[in-house]
Amino acid sequence: MKSLDELCINTLRMLSVDQIEAANSGHPGLPLGAAPMTYVLWDRYLRHDPQHPDWFDRDRFILSAGHGSALLYALLHMSGYDLPLEELKRFRQWGSKTPGHPEYGVTPGVEVTTGPLGQGFATGVGMAIAEAHLAAVFNRPGFPVVNHHTYALVSDGDLMEGVASEAASLAGHLGLGKLVYLYDDNRISIEGSTDITFTENVELRFRSYGWQVLRVANGNDTEAVDKAVSDSWSEPNKPTLVIVRTHIGYGSPKQDSADAHGAPLGSEACRATKESLGWPLDEPFHVPPEAKAHMGRDRDRGTHARAAWVQLLEGYRKAYPIEAERFERLIRGDLTAGWDEGLPVFRPEDGPMATRSASGKALNALASKLPTMIGGSADLAPSNNSVIKDSPDFQLNCRTGRNIHFGVREHAMAAAVNGMALHGGVVPYGATFLIFSDYARPALRLASLMGAPSRFIFTHDSIGVGEDGPTHQPVDQLLSLRAIPNFLVLRPADANETVAAWKVAVTRKGPAALALTRQKLPILDPADGRVAAGVPRGAYVLADADKETPDIVMAAGGSEVALALDTRKRLSQRGVAARVVSVPSWELFEEQDDEYRDAVLPPGVPRLILEAASAKGLHRYAGPQGTVVGLDRFGASAPGGELMKRMGFEPDTVAEMALGLLKRL
Amino acid sequence: MKSLDELCINTLRMLSVDQIEAANSGHPGLPLGAAPMTYVLWDRYLRHDPQHPDWFDRDRFILSAGHGSALLYALLHMSGYDLPLEELKRFRQWGSKTPGHPEYGVTPGVEVTTGPLGQGFATGVGMAIAEAHLAAVFNRPGFPVVNHHTYALVSDGDLMEGVASEAASLAGHLGLGKLVYLYDDNRISIEGSTDITFTENVELRFRSYGWQVLRVANGNDTEAVDKAVSDSWSEPNKPTLVIVRTHIGYGSPKQDSADAHGAPLGSEACRATKESLGWPLDEPFHVPPEAKAHMGRDRDRGTHARAAWVQLLEGYRKAYPIEAERFERLIRGDLTAGWDEGLPVFRPEDGPMATRSASGKALNALASKLPTMIGGSADLAPSNNSVIKDSPDFQLNCRTGRNIHFGVREHAMAAAVNGMALHGGVVPYGATFLIFSDYARPALRLASLMGAPSRFIFTHDSIGVGEDGPTHQPVDQLLSLRAIPNFLVLRPADANETVAAWKVAVTRKGPAALALTRQKLPILDPADGRVAAGVPRGAYVLADADKETPDIVMAAGGSEVALALDTRKRLSQRGVAARVVSVPSWELFEEQDDEYRDAVLPPGVPRLILEAASAKGLHRYAGPQGTVVGLDRFGASAPGGELMKRMGFEPDTVAEMALGLLKRL
Repeated sequence: MKSLDELCINTLRMLSVDQIEAANSGHPGLPLGAAPMTYVLWDRYLRHDPQHPDWFDRDRFILSAGHGSALLYALLHMSGYDLPLEELKRFRQWGSKTPGHPEYGVTPGVEVTTGPLGQGFATGVGMAIAEAHLAAVFNRPGFPVVNHHTYALVSDGDLMEGVASEAASLAGHLGLGKLVYLYDDNRISIEGSTDITFTENVELRFRSYGWQVLRVANGNDTEAVDKAVSDSWSEPNKPTLVIVRTHIGYGSPKQDSADAHGAPLGSEACRATKESLGWPLDEPFHVPPEAKAHMGRDRDRGTHARAAWVQLLEGYRKAYPIEAERFERLIRGDLTAGWDEGLPVFRPEDGPMATRSASGKALNALASKLPTMIGGSADLAPSNNSVIKDSPDFQLNCRTGRNIHFGVREHAMAAAVNGMALHGGVVPYGATFLIFSDYARPALRLASLMGAPSRFIFTHDSIGVGEDGPTHQPVDQLLSLRAIPNFLVLRPADANETVAAWKVAVTRKGPAALALTRQKLPILDPADGRVAAGVPRGAYVLADADKETPDIVMAAGGSEVALALDTRKRLSQRGVAARVVSVPSWELFEEQDDEYRDAVLPPGVPRLILEAASAKGLHRYAGPQGTVVGLDRFGASAPGGELMKRMGFEPDTVAEMALGLLKRL
Repeated sequence: MKSLDELCINTLRMLSVDQIEAANSGHPGLPLGAAPMTYVLWDRYLRHDPQHPDWFDRDRFILSAGHGSALLYALLHMSGYDLPLEELKRFRQWGSKTPGHPEYGVTPGVEVTTGPLGQGFATGVGMAIAEAHLAAVFNRPGFPVVNHHTYALVSDGDLMEGVASEAASLAGHLGLGKLVYLYDDNRISIEGSTDITFTENVELRFRSYGWQVLRVANGNDTEAVDKAVSDSWSEPNKPTLVIVRTHIGYGSPKQDSADAHGAPLGSEACRATKESLGWPLDEPFHVPPEAKAHMGRDRDRGTHARAAWVQLLEGYRKAYPIEAERFERLIRGDLTAGWDEGLPVFRPEDGPMATRSASGKALNALASKLPTMIGGSADLAPSNNSVIKDSPDFQLNCRTGRNIHFGVREHAMAAAVNGMALHGGVVPYGATFLIFSDYARPALRLASLMGAPSRFIFTHDSIGVGEDGPTHQPVDQLLSLRAIPNFLVLRPADANETVAAWKVAVTRKGPAALALTRQKLPILDPADGRVAAGVPRGAYVLADADKETPDIVMAAGGSEVALALDTRKRLSQRGVAARVVSVPSWELFEEQDDEYRDAVLPPGVPRLILEAASAKGLHRYAGPQGTVVGLDRFGASAPGGELMKRMGFEPDTVAEMALGLLKRL
């Protein structure tokens, strides 16, 4: 008779295999090898409440090796989450709660969407940052209302990805002691043994980052895993990597072979596996009652753990009513009442201002009202204007600090911002040059897929950057970001639009990025409230034609709005009545109803769409009688103003384009 | 009196500072601190010929910290490259040869475009791979015709970037002993001391990767630098990192401060710096004749070194005429005569085939004719069909191998492919899923900016991927890649188009990527040569309407071509005569003349553009009387065929869209 532990572990293994066989698609290798360590973690350490997956002070568990999704679904099912066996039987099918890779928001208990390697690893670092910050801000003696771990299962693929290296270096620097990652060291990747490309000394590498590294020589040794997780707590100021030696496809005929990784075992090997593990051969999705009962204790334990926390919170509420009110509001995701009061207003007579500067002022005004607004830059804070001025840095010795130095690690920054956003309780942001959003793109995409309210400050948003040249001048990035479904790009035209854009970004459910100028722009007149009302709608009439139906509508965003206004004057001199539409966000504009959109861009009126960036995505807005003035080439190294002129972004050239369009029509 | 070395070093320093002052823009901190080490390297080690910057067997020098461009221009000028002082005076100005960051192809002697951090580091790894491979293939006893080093200057910012971590791990695994990187350890980044975020143990980290790590305690100690570079050669099977402790902004009032990094010193600090270094105060761009004479020896030494190599090659030509002929052709970049003969031809009766499978066959046929075609996958070779079947792996113990296991390191892979392409003599490629091109995007963009002939195999190109779900289904990637200027995307519709696309990719001057299906596609009939002739033109009439002027033109690429053909039949049943245009590449189509384009997409005929991906970039092709059937949402986890149908990519739905369009018009 096998032990109960072994029975549970084999249940996880075979539930995984059966899901994959049923779908005829999936990755059995990881679940077979890694089931024991996840079982030990979930059974003996993970503090969670399957009936309340959103309990704020739960431990977070991330399956960074998302291809092992079947194992996670087996764990969730066995622990009593609302994930019935029927859903496991519909693994990887349309509309199921068991998609091919874990998806946040689809399956209760899935904390992060994973699959693209390295992302879960780096996202967890953000969660641990959020935990450490909130604990420092809100915990009081006797009231550790924020006190949880962030665990992950990571694979060799995760560790090879650069984003994980960045995140590991950052986590080590920050001393995130409550971050514990189990490394499924199975020594097999898709192309074969890891010997063919991954021969670095992982232990040494993680020690170099400042991590505690522990080892489990046999991944099937539950006591050794137990001891390692327990030992991980001995270093409160170091994240821990537990290197667990496992065997991919354990127990199957494909054990220790790349063949076990990414394809169903097939009926024959599946049968052989069940035989070798002493499992009923003809009963797919078999769940021994003892295993179900044992792992199902998680529900009760979760109920108790959460109840204890609720009680703790009650005491906290009495002892620290102000803090408790604030804390409870934050974990609900509510913003402070009046959070958007006192935002700066800029007047034309104050003179021109770069939108990055305005953003810095808006950010600081918001941060004064939003106590857990926290973020930073990938080593470009002085240029991004991303510092919260009245706060210290977030460091090991100052967890209340709200300024994070992410280092030149754009990708880990974006993933960590996602992790903070998913963790909740904080209002996180990251900053870099728009051009370097490229480095972070996989994490930006995942933010969209998850609907994570991550905010990004992307300054230096066009060839207006100037002398730094084409390596630093975004041409393709706006289009590339707009191509991501549900990713909100805001490109304000002046300081006041920037403030309004920040308000949209803060309340947005999904990710939002502000594309901001390095160069100064004139201030639009906010007197009539048009800017504040217009920005949330994505586009609005900024300067109308002098007659009822304009001869032409010019629509532009960001720095090109001022150009459109100048062009409008030129056209007026030539007898052409032009309307200028400011477009801080095409995405928001598309969310408006037809009536509004037609009022702003009247059908039948010729349109000129203007943006100093790749024009490829703008033709859809130009309509049948329109043209696009864009930039389908790289920039160059020269002063920004000169560059704009040489590339045709100056009023006379644009006016000629407009006149040419009208002539053609 | 200062030593001659010091005079030369100060010349480099002050030429850098003066460039930046003249431009009123640039980064003086690095040149002031790092001038000594680069001077020693160039003066005593670098084997190059300033009069023949393209000499094949030169050492490569990469300024990975590209923001130090002024130092590189000073080095190039002083060593006798065709970069007169006048160009230094036009630093960062329109049309100069001294752009803000080094640009390959703009300035003689600049090997790689750098600036985005980590890229130069990773690109150099590719250069060292190319060198090691070509040396193994062509060198013969007494004839080391390929025998050079790859050097780089790297900064803390480079080392923080994930792409550098990936590349370092790969380089360590491959044992690239002729890779020597000098690390400008100045302990200052833009946000301040590196203590605020970069406290990892760099030495330990690089040792964990299998690198030799050497230290220079004082970066001004030329003899210590000399010894370190010399010692780097002692480990033939390990790359070397020399950690050189320097002081940013050395000699200036801003020394050891972040203020020295990215802004001109300003006239006062500039004057103070000149004073402290004993430099003439009122003579910008001062070049002491002794310094010029001393560093100018590089020209003579280069002439001799290259002449010796030419002589060596002559001997080689006599002793190994076949190898020599091949070698000389390769380093000229000429393809073998008949390289495109014997490529596979597929017939409809062979049954449907995934384009990734066809690509594997084409690749192997090409590799049999192109002896230095070399590449691999980021751990997805079995899925990418990217293995050269009759070749072993490229490893430390097998440098002739042509299959590189890049590991799960997409970003380093792309940068390394760039490095191989820039090095020359090889025909390099990299492979991964199209979705993971996101991880490599900064390197893909640089390939375009440099015009590097890098080839990429991007399989699993749509929601047709199926069960793996939205994390693995490209929706936004095609548009995102097409947004990069000069980046060629080829999305063939069947096996024969795939072969034709490979032919285009191999001969393309800049980067090219093949977007290929996981799922099988029917074979188009190649009998009339239409496919082979059409693919290089980007788009062609695949199936015409049954009457002279079609009622509608449907244009599609990749897997949607078969759908368009099926839709055409449906429309025919409804009395609508449709033309189907296959569009393997919109970029190639745009390169055609108006006559051809109008012949394929006749103006005035309604158009339906079809692609199972973000439609945002396709409206420009739809024209005033057109519509786009695309996918502006994420995919989902379900079998691929089902997914295509549910998302509307099936003939009845598309036919209805076409009929709707015709009705509206």
